[in-house]
Amino acid sequence: MPNTVDTAHIQSLDSAHFLHPFTDFKDLNARGAKVITKAEGIYIWDSEGNRLLDAMSGLWCVSVGYGRKELADAAHQQMMALPYYNSFFQTTNVPAATLAAKLASLAPKVDGRSFEHVFYSSSGSESNDSNVRMVRRYWDLLGQPQRKVIISRHNGYHGSTMAAASLSGMSYMHAQGDLPIPNITHIEQPYFFENARSGETSDEFGLRAAGWLEAKILEVGPDKVAAFIGEPVQGAGGVIIPPATYWPEIQRIVDKYGILLISDEVICAFGRLGHWFAYEKFGYKPDLVTFAKGVTSGYIPLGGVLVGDRVAKVLIEQGGEFNHGYTYSGHPVACAVALANLQIMESENLPERVRTDLGPYLASKYAALNEHPLVAHAESCGFVAGLVLVKDKRTGERFDPDLSVGMLCRKHCFANGLVMRAVGDRMIIAPPLVMTHAQIDEMVALILLCLDLTWQELKTAGYVQ
Amino acid sequence: MPNTVDTAHIQSLDSAHFLHPFTDFKDLNARGAKVITKAEGIYIWDSEGNRLLDAMSGLWCVSVGYGRKELADAAHQQMMALPYYNSFFQTTNVPAATLAAKLASLAPKVDGRSFEHVFYSSSGSESNDSNVRMVRRYWDLLGQPQRKVIISRHNGYHGSTMAAASLSGMSYMHAQGDLPIPNITHIEQPYFFENARSGETSDEFGLRAAGWLEAKILEVGPDKVAAFIGEPVQGAGGVIIPPATYWPEIQRIVDKYGILLISDEVICAFGRLGHWFAYEKFGYKPDLVTFAKGVTSGYIPLGGVLVGDRVAKVLIEQGGEFNHGYTYSGHPVACAVALANLQIMESENLPERVRTDLGPYLASKYAALNEHPLVAHAESCGFVAGLVLVKDKRTGERFDPDLSVGMLCRKHCFANGLVMRAVGDRMIIAPPLVMTHAQIDEMVALILLCLDLTWQELKTAGYVQ
Ligand SMILES: Cc1ncc(COP(=O)(O)O)c(C=O)c1O
Ligand SMILES: Cc1ncc(COP(=O)(O)O)c(C=O)c1O
Repeated sequence: MPNTVDTAHIQSLDSAHFLHPFTDFKDLNARGAKVITKAEGIYIWDSEGNRLLDAMSGLWCVSVGYGRKELADAAHQQMMALPYYNSFFQTTNVPAATLAAKLASLAPKVDGRSFEHVFYSSSGSESNDSNVRMVRRYWDLLGQPQRKVIISRHNGYHGSTMAAASLSGMSYMHAQGDLPIPNITHIEQPYFFENARSGETSDEFGLRAAGWLEAKILEVGPDKVAAFIGEPVQGAGGVIIPPATYWPEIQRIVDKYGILLISDEVICAFGRLGHWFAYEKFGYKPDLVTFAKGVTSGYIPLGGVLVGDRVAKVLIEQGGEFNHGYTYSGHPVACAVALANLQIMESENLPERVRTDLGPYLASKYAALNEHPLVAHAESCGFVAGLVLVKDKRTGERFDPDLSVGMLCRKHCFANGLVMRAVGDRMIIAPPLVMTHAQIDEMVALILLCLDLTWQELKTAGYVQ
Repeated sequence: MPNTVDTAHIQSLDSAHFLHPFTDFKDLNARGAKVITKAEGIYIWDSEGNRLLDAMSGLWCVSVGYGRKELADAAHQQMMALPYYNSFFQTTNVPAATLAAKLASLAPKVDGRSFEHVFYSSSGSESNDSNVRMVRRYWDLLGQPQRKVIISRHNGYHGSTMAAASLSGMSYMHAQGDLPIPNITHIEQPYFFENARSGETSDEFGLRAAGWLEAKILEVGPDKVAAFIGEPVQGAGGVIIPPATYWPEIQRIVDKYGILLISDEVICAFGRLGHWFAYEKFGYKPDLVTFAKGVTSGYIPLGGVLVGDRVAKVLIEQGGEFNHGYTYSGHPVACAVALANLQIMESENLPERVRTDLGPYLASKYAALNEHPLVAHAESCGFVAGLVLVKDKRTGERFDPDLSVGMLCRKHCFANGLVMRAVGDRMIIAPPLVMTHAQIDEMVALILLCLDLTWQELKTAGYVQ
């Protein structure tokens, strides 16, 4: 697509016809959408020729960066060979079977538990929706159909289908359209900055936050609880990095009550936190692992669930027909692109590079951001990072939410060639995993510039001193 | 992918790692899946070099046939230009905006009602799940939050997420995992062969079957009903073609009670029934139209909802932010492939060809199948067709379901180079829309051969005389 796009024309088609996700349509139509037309490496361009450094990897997904010919070639080749075939009726295709084996080989075993099976979908939402069906089926087959309740967390994000939005803990989502569906309940998130008691250490808080799970299990009744689901690090909630004590304590609790553990790694898998899968980093042992996004670097829709032995065994041996699936489960082109993408990640050693080099380098840069007068709690984990914009650094006083300080900051980012996301007063990033140190420096310099501009604007308006 | 696949190796990866959709895993593992490796036009090949005529278009989707270089080229070009960008944060991309406008231009207006807006997803399931959220949001915004109930039909199929599976009327799906979710209820399907009274004409039955909707509305309470959803012709349920009187009477009833009408055209749109959209064929006026499959001919996952003026106006003008959407809503590569696919459909005039030439030709061939001793009610509609395998043609006596007569027949099809689907005792097809008359002849000859072989097998075993 050459950069000869008629911006006004595309904007008019856009506002007349395209209902965007998670958008106030009327508001967007009044402004006109920015038209993104091309991309290369870690940069995107709009139709006016402006270049932006994409510190969000599209939407947590373009891990290998834009413009990777290997992926386009894989799609083309597979579309010419076999663009689609179903796997419903005792048929399979080479990319789907090969990718399932590959994913199983990448998922680390913990304490003898392994992930040998994959259930495919086309998105994170479908995958978590499938988890609800699999978890309930599992307990049905074990003769405990009363175990229906899935415990999730406030401000967690698991997708947007009715079931996935129910798992999600976003109150603004639950306010629309009769959510959550029955038998899904939420506990508070492990957000130290917001939920810790004064004087509490991070480790103490992590244990206390995990304890909310046990309290909820006891409240619901241990024999009624089917599973707990959580993101290793909450992404859409604002890059909420849990204390080190959190996940091991969660593991102790799910083990104690025998409930299933679902690790939603739609954001965190495939090198994002420096490992192929994030449960390894935090040292827990999930039964089901949700994936999407990074598996194809977003070049084509694909998602799925890694099904651990405990669940797979019951579904396979005792289940008979599992009456669930999607037309595009095991889509040959999506799976072929995923294989090419994992090939790049392997040959460029991306998970390890994030773990041993890029991640630590970013962490040191982020630590330095804490010097900024507007910033508290700047921290990173692998290749996601977040910070809080605060009114008063010493006291931690926060801005009036009506000020939408994050949106102010994001506006400066967009105007200065940087894509950064605002979640309330948190500014977050999840950059492509293929950055050089020089590009990290460039990104952090842009972040600092935009923080300065935000600070100046707030000062001029009298919101900070 | 050259046909040099090691069948046993792929089968072993498959059975060790790939949990297939709608499958008895243990049973499949015992048999080993057929490995489909390449395809061209209307044919697919397995890894042993066997060619099959794919009379199911993959899974109701490969409408323009296999091996279309235009689609592979469109995917490649878009992946190199912009493989992904999100449309959440006031950004758009050229293919998504252009496709939305294109779809709006293809959807015929009825009585001044038009479809100007598109909400994107990656599947039929996600699209219908989105419909539930949009319908309930619509009534909330109009101050009628108690209108939550969506009425659907037994043996209708609307997908496999929790909400879409709830809309689906498949009892074997509802038997697993706590379905349906609340406020979804079902009426009986308009299946003349099964549900008509003796002596009742098709037209009489159509009116009576539509009347079940009115009875259900009155039972639920007219002020509690939000919408009715139906497939124009039920696909997965076995190609159930409704009587001509059915849809106009449904329209009268939804109008009378002011409820929304959702036309699930995941199978029926894009020329499958000889029109761009199937509601035109049957003369009704939906408020929401679900699409997927044919929009890309299955080459890449894409789905969505055409949102009619009535709903769009309320969501846009009164809605504020609609807190719903998917990472891949408006995926640039999926939309680029859809545009190339619609371009082929337009330049080859496929909807009109089905309406005026291929459809009638297939219908005449199907009428002739009624001569076969095993066949009742062979009929087609556009380019879907079905027939019932009966034990006694004169009395209409059906086979014992335990005999799985459809599976017997399907086994002969597979062994003789034909993909045909069995739904209970119904054998169904939905061939690519690019067939020649000679290919239709070839397909029908294969169908006849397989019916003969099935008949002989049943006769030898003493099930028929
Ligand atoms: C952790 C997590 N789970 C699930 C989802 C839903 O994925 P999708 O938007 O592909 O449905 C997301 C999307 O951002 C996510 O971040
Ligand atoms: C009418 C109809 N609606 C919805 C769906 C679900 O689509 P998907 O499998 O892409 O989720 C299907 C799939 O066959 C369908 O036929």
